Amino acid sequence: MNQTCEQVKEYLKKIRKYEQAAALISWDLQTAAPKKSIDSKLEALGFFSTEAFRLSTAEEYGSMLRELSRPEVFAGLDEAMQVTVRRNYRDYQRFQRVPQDFYTDYITTSGRSEKVWEEAKRAGDFSLFAPSLDKMIAMTKEYVGYMEPDKDPYEVLLDMYEEGMDSAAIDAVFSELKNGLLPLLSAIRAAGRPDLASLKGTYDIEAQKKVQDLLLSYIGFDFDAGAAAESEHPFTTGLCHGDIRVTNHYNETLPLSSMFSAIHEGGHAIFEQNIDSAYINTAAEQVNLMGLHESQSRFYENILGRTPAFWTPLYGKLGELLPPFKAIPFDTFCRAINDVHPSFIRTEADEVTYCLHIILRYEMEKAIFQENVPTDRLPALWNDKMEELLGIRPENDAEGILQDMHWSEGSFGYFPSYLLGSVYDGMFLKQIEKELGNLDCILEEGRIQEITAWLKEKIHRYGSIYNSREVIRRVCGGEVSAKPLLDYFRSKYSRIYGF
Amino acid sequence: MNQTCEQVKEYLKKIRKYEQAAALISWDLQTAAPKKSIDSKLEALGFFSTEAFRLSTAEEYGSMLRELSRPEVFAGLDEAMQVTVRRNYRDYQRFQRVPQDFYTDYITTSGRSEKVWEEAKRAGDFSLFAPSLDKMIAMTKEYVGYMEPDKDPYEVLLDMYEEGMDSAAIDAVFSELKNGLLPLLSAIRAAGRPDLASLKGTYDIEAQKKVQDLLLSYIGFDFDAGAAAESEHPFTTGLCHGDIRVTNHYNETLPLSSMFSAIHEGGHAIFEQNIDSAYINTAAEQVNLMGLHESQSRFYENILGRTPAFWTPLYGKLGELLPPFKAIPFDTFCRAINDVHPSFIRTEADEVTYCLHIILRYEMEKAIFQENVPTDRLPALWNDKMEELLGIRPENDAEGILQDMHWSEGSFGYFPSYLLGSVYDGMFLKQIEKELGNLDCILEEGRIQEITAWLKEKIHRYGSIYNSREVIRRVCGGEVSAKPLLDYFRSKYSRIYGF
Repeated sequence: MNQTCEQVKEYLKKIRKYEQAAALISWDLQTAAPKKSIDSKLEALGFFSTEAFRLSTAEEYGSMLRELSRPEVFAGLDEAMQVTVRRNYRDYQRFQRVPQDFYTDYITTSGRSEKVWEEAKRAGDFSLFAPSLDKMIAMTKEYVGYMEPDKDPYEVLLDMYEEGMDSAAIDAVFSELKNGLLPLLSAIRAAGRPDLASLKGTYDIEAQKKVQDLLLSYIGFDFDAGAAAESEHPFTTGLCHGDIRVTNHYNETLPLSSMFSAIHEGGHAIFEQNIDSAYINTAAEQVNLMGLHESQSRFYENILGRTPAFWTPLYGKLGELLPPFKAIPFDTFCRAINDVHPSFIRTEADEVTYCLHIILRYEMEKAIFQENVPTDRLPALWNDKMEELLGIRPENDAEGILQDMHWSEGSFGYFPSYLLGSVYDGMFLKQIEKELGNLDCILEEGRIQEITAWLKEKIHRYGSIYNSREVIRRVCGGEVSAKPLLDYFRSKYSRIYGF
Repeated sequence: MNQTCEQVKEYLKKIRKYEQAAALISWDLQTAAPKKSIDSKLEALGFFSTEAFRLSTAEEYGSMLRELSRPEVFAGLDEAMQVTVRRNYRDYQRFQRVPQDFYTDYITTSGRSEKVWEEAKRAGDFSLFAPSLDKMIAMTKEYVGYMEPDKDPYEVLLDMYEEGMDSAAIDAVFSELKNGLLPLLSAIRAAGRPDLASLKGTYDIEAQKKVQDLLLSYIGFDFDAGAAAESEHPFTTGLCHGDIRVTNHYNETLPLSSMFSAIHEGGHAIFEQNIDSAYINTAAEQVNLMGLHESQSRFYENILGRTPAFWTPLYGKLGELLPPFKAIPFDTFCRAINDVHPSFIRTEADEVTYCLHIILRYEMEKAIFQENVPTDRLPALWNDKMEELLGIRPENDAEGILQDMHWSEGSFGYFPSYLLGSVYDGMFLKQIEKELGNLDCILEEGRIQEITAWLKEKIHRYGSIYNSREVIRRVCGGEVSAKPLLDYFRSKYSRIYGF
């Protein structure tokens, strides 16, 4: 074994420690930290992020990576170390161009901006958040400008969240989708909404937490390698090997929201829990391929979770834990979880209009980054696009532009990956039915663990060894296409809505 | 301002960051971490503790402290920096003698030993824990042996937990107590136990948590500067300025246990929350004077919490949150919280027999450290002493030697500080009644915040600027004495038990 390779491995372990501390402080800030500790925690978060950054950009590390990049040395590395060297050397070169003071400032500003966003959302007032957003846009442009000075900042961001993707490829897939979805949505709206009055009521929050635990266990989340908590916006985070955590947000009148958030975040978490432990402390255990990550959360949430057969073995237990469900006929429940209709909140949207929510955000991001639309014009632009795509107009910013936390922390370019994930899901579904047989039969018989095993075998265990396009080629044998997703939508919803 | 002083302040801020990370990881290990992450978290805990240790013992830091220790420089420092330099230079000199590899091993072994203890306690089997305890005893001796090679290890440990205390002083106070308590306990036992059958029942755990929140708020715990969670054994930890956390452990049939743990840990937490923010990043904000710390938790738990007048303004609310209390007469409740009788578990003991539990542990520690009694003989020795002091003999190790976590993490010499805390409390009570008036009147009128304000003004805000003996001198104007505590016990229990 190459000696430099061993040194890099030791070095990676050290970087990972600082990242682990930063991840835990960040988790704490979002789930438990009391008000008066926020400044101190943000300072500590800045410190540990900066230390990790400093180590990743140290000349000492760069020389080791340069040495391992030499073709004759590189050829002798195992696959995980090849991925590590290729990706980390690229990042080293990118990050080395970012001034350390700027980076610390960026991380601290981002943490503060998240808190401002929370308050602005509570107040439903975009003007409270506008100065922070303005700063995050400017600083994000500056950030990627340092990293890739000769490239368009938005293209750099897209590539950061979904390696190998660019706006040309996304434009093509999204426009095929938009063309297919608008008439499908018209047909669904013409068929009329189901009567869901029987779902109205109050659903005990402690009981909703028990339903979350049931759902997480059922789909394969390992509570010996993770935990659950509450936060403003549901998310998943990997604190270290063997500790992948999910959060949820509960509302007494919206039990379906916490149930499907649980399945969604559970999908993210199962992916990370299933990564081969041989990849610990290599780049392969960190899945920064957001489209691929979202494909797994959305596969569980939509392709599995919104299929009536998924609930056949579970519906009785659901009624036991949350008694109001006893009074709801199974058929009504199945219509409710597939109730396609325009609405304001992305995370509450059905799987069809959800695609249009993402297309809206993608167009907003292009307006911000490529057309430089001023911040104060963004709420109106958001509302106009909402009207164009979904035919409805938000009455306040909390149900409009303030609903998502992503931009507050500078995660521009992240949104498209949600929809790319669904596009991949159409392809995975087609392949699973080819290899394992009819999905409804598998789910009705409670054999969901066969699907989780398939996903683990084909996708999860590799972590980020392969990027999304490579995974699609290996698993489905072709290029990324929106057709399987549109086929799935058309077949499913023409049956449900009878057109 | 001296330039070296500024450098030391910056340096202290950095050390505090590593300590903050270690504290958060340790908190997480004890309250939330899933099984499969334990090795990874212990490794991270070892890493950050070692980094803090490395910084505290670096030659660079030592020279700065040496410079500030020079009389003409030292005289120009403010009080907090004088305390910092004096204490940190002493610790620097002590720690510098501890080999770094040994220290890392010690921290990791301690974390692992805690987990082994948890399992052994669950199994009620000391033999599972014996090898870990043996190792912790040997390593603790080695540890303090490095630090103070010419001193008796147990004296060094006593001084580490309660600066300025030694076994001669403790022997004197504890023997006065033992002589006073044994006849008092005989008189109480002769008077017979009250009928507490009406307290038997099931007390909902979610409701117990709400009672904890009520009690914490009532005594002055600031939820904007802290939080609560669950763990095997209740504890308090300061994660950073503005974030002092408590834990509790719940049992459906023992509501008084979680209520008094809440008040006890709340007392610790209020102390830390009230420390003057001017002391941030100095040694004064870290209160390693365990006797003084325990005096605050035990003042709230016993002197206040076990006085009937404390409950007068609260008992109605308690019944609302935990309906079984509605059926319990107030007088019966007051007898229950002052039900003095020998029992096995220290944390469930009344305030009188509690003293004897500590005297037992103090004698055990002297047997371990000064008489070198072998580990396999310790359970029998424990049981013999229990019989001698309390007249009862444990049937298994879980209710005997395995009940406390302290030894599993190497905290030998800590136990005496619990009782020293109560001794100080007798003196504080006497002084409060002199300055503020009759305690019962203050509590009955719900003016508990006046007591918290007095404690803050006289004790809390100074952090560890003064050690316990100095605090006693400043606040009570005399030397440490067991007499006020014995007076308080005799007066209170002769009234309650009518002798």
